[in-house]
Amino acid sequence: MNKDQLFEQIQKKRSFLCVGLDTDILKIPKHLLDTSDPIFSFNKEIIDATAEYAVAYKPNLAFYESQGWQGWESLEKTVMYVKSKHPDIFLIADAKRGDIGNTSNLYARTFFDRLDFDAVTVAPYMGEDSVKPFMTYLDKWVILLALTSNKGAFDFQFIKNDENGDQLFETVLKTSQNWGTTENMMYVVGATKAEKLKEIRKIVPDHFLLVPGVGAQGGSLEAVAKNGMNSKCGLLVNSSRGIIYASTDVDFAEKAGEAAQKVQQEMEELLKDAGLN
Amino acid sequence: MNKDQLFEQIQKKRSFLCVGLDTDILKIPKHLLDTSDPIFSFNKEIIDATAEYAVAYKPNLAFYESQGWQGWESLEKTVMYVKSKHPDIFLIADAKRGDIGNTSNLYARTFFDRLDFDAVTVAPYMGEDSVKPFMTYLDKWVILLALTSNKGAFDFQFIKNDENGDQLFETVLKTSQNWGTTENMMYVVGATKAEKLKEIRKIVPDHFLLVPGVGAQGGSLEAVAKNGMNSKCGLLVNSSRGIIYASTDVDFAEKAGEAAQKVQQEMEELLKDAGLN
Repeated sequence: MNKDQLFEQIQKKRSFLCVGLDTDILKIPKHLLDTSDPIFSFNKEIIDATAEYAVAYKPNLAFYESQGWQGWESLEKTVMYVKSKHPDIFLIADAKRGDIGNTSNLYARTFFDRLDFDAVTVAPYMGEDSVKPFMTYLDKWVILLALTSNKGAFDFQFIKNDENGDQLFETVLKTSQNWGTTENMMYVVGATKAEKLKEIRKIVPDHFLLVPGVGAQGGSLEAVAKNGMNSKCGLLVNSSRGIIYASTDVDFAEKAGEAAQKVQQEMEELLKDAGLN
Repeated sequence: MNKDQLFEQIQKKRSFLCVGLDTDILKIPKHLLDTSDPIFSFNKEIIDATAEYAVAYKPNLAFYESQGWQGWESLEKTVMYVKSKHPDIFLIADAKRGDIGNTSNLYARTFFDRLDFDAVTVAPYMGEDSVKPFMTYLDKWVILLALTSNKGAFDFQFIKNDENGDQLFETVLKTSQNWGTTENMMYVVGATKAEKLKEIRKIVPDHFLLVPGVGAQGGSLEAVAKNGMNSKCGLLVNSSRGIIYASTDVDFAEKAGEAAQKVQQEMEELLKDAGLN
């Protein structure tokens, strides 16, 4: 999916919601445990109930890997389900990969060729050759970690460069712009750092940003929109636990749909405020 | 496996070789493709042929994931095989994971509880809470990326901190020492940066270092040993392609054994030179 198509979906659904499929076998409703693939069963119902309110889904690989090869099978089935039933969804592998060139190349093959994700989250520490292999696929995206939503972000991401005073996350934003374009790169910026979004928009005015941390982690949707929205929206705001675990009973899908709709309605207002409806 | 046990293995085998199991379905001998699990078949023969010369094995997750759920099954079988047939081997998941705390927690469960690896490579960008969950398991290890062997290492890892002049990889080494001990942390330092090992040893004199980049990537074993060895050896030097693809014919295991033995013999000399035999 390219940038125009993504913005088209945002306008059509009046939403920039990404639903995080952090599907935890310990948290899903008990009645699903009798099915042959409880994680896939859960995802399928969640997706069908929320797809009209969300433009993107983001399976977090850790949850699937924790179930070993069966978890990977659930992931593959989830991807195929989305691509066949909801082909307009933007699908993000939250994998935070990154390795030397020939290894990143293999990760790219995995997520884009074998699994047909639209985007993969990538860690920047190993630099250009660890990131570029993900940008050789047409209409596929790297989502590079810039400023993350967690406490540990303060350990290294704010270190100031003695040459120019740039903080590390700013250097990542500036340097990596030479590696790709606004058509194949996005950045992760945590909602818990929403006040930084204004500065970040000066460096990357046109890139899409994937924003986790609204909800359970404490970030504010309004602050994110106010500081981070651009003329093509430029935001995918993720919510995981607040939507997929809105209920842990037999009505889980219905309640997830309601929770997603509630976020969509807030987003519709924010898009209107920005004149993007 | 704890630090003393690892050093005991190094002295017993007179080797600090780690064999990288970068098992690529496109590169393994053709006759294995008829077996039910070619990747596992390859690994099993490679391990049996090289185990007397190596103290560690390091499957690179990218190669397994590229085969989807079947690849994860091959990985699980490989781990179980090593743990049952060669229980004295130190087993490293080269996964370069790292995410917010609750997600890193899941990755740790995957690699330590479900798969029984001894260590996981972790990327430092997201800071303390992304790393610590891997250090809550007895005798299990984090191997944190410090200075990597690839060209992209120069993009961010050498940025100087304007407060103290430390380069980013030095800050990672210094800061992360407060998170763990020499009994649960190691660092990745690329062999292509061997001249930096002397400075690095000033910061982390007692930690083990995992050193990739000897062989195909151009690093020198002698330079690594000369600059990086400490009184408990303190080094695991990885070789992947040079050993596992020494031959791509039916004699692949035998040739891998010979290649591993050759490295072991060099290592034995280097251990002698350091008085560690």
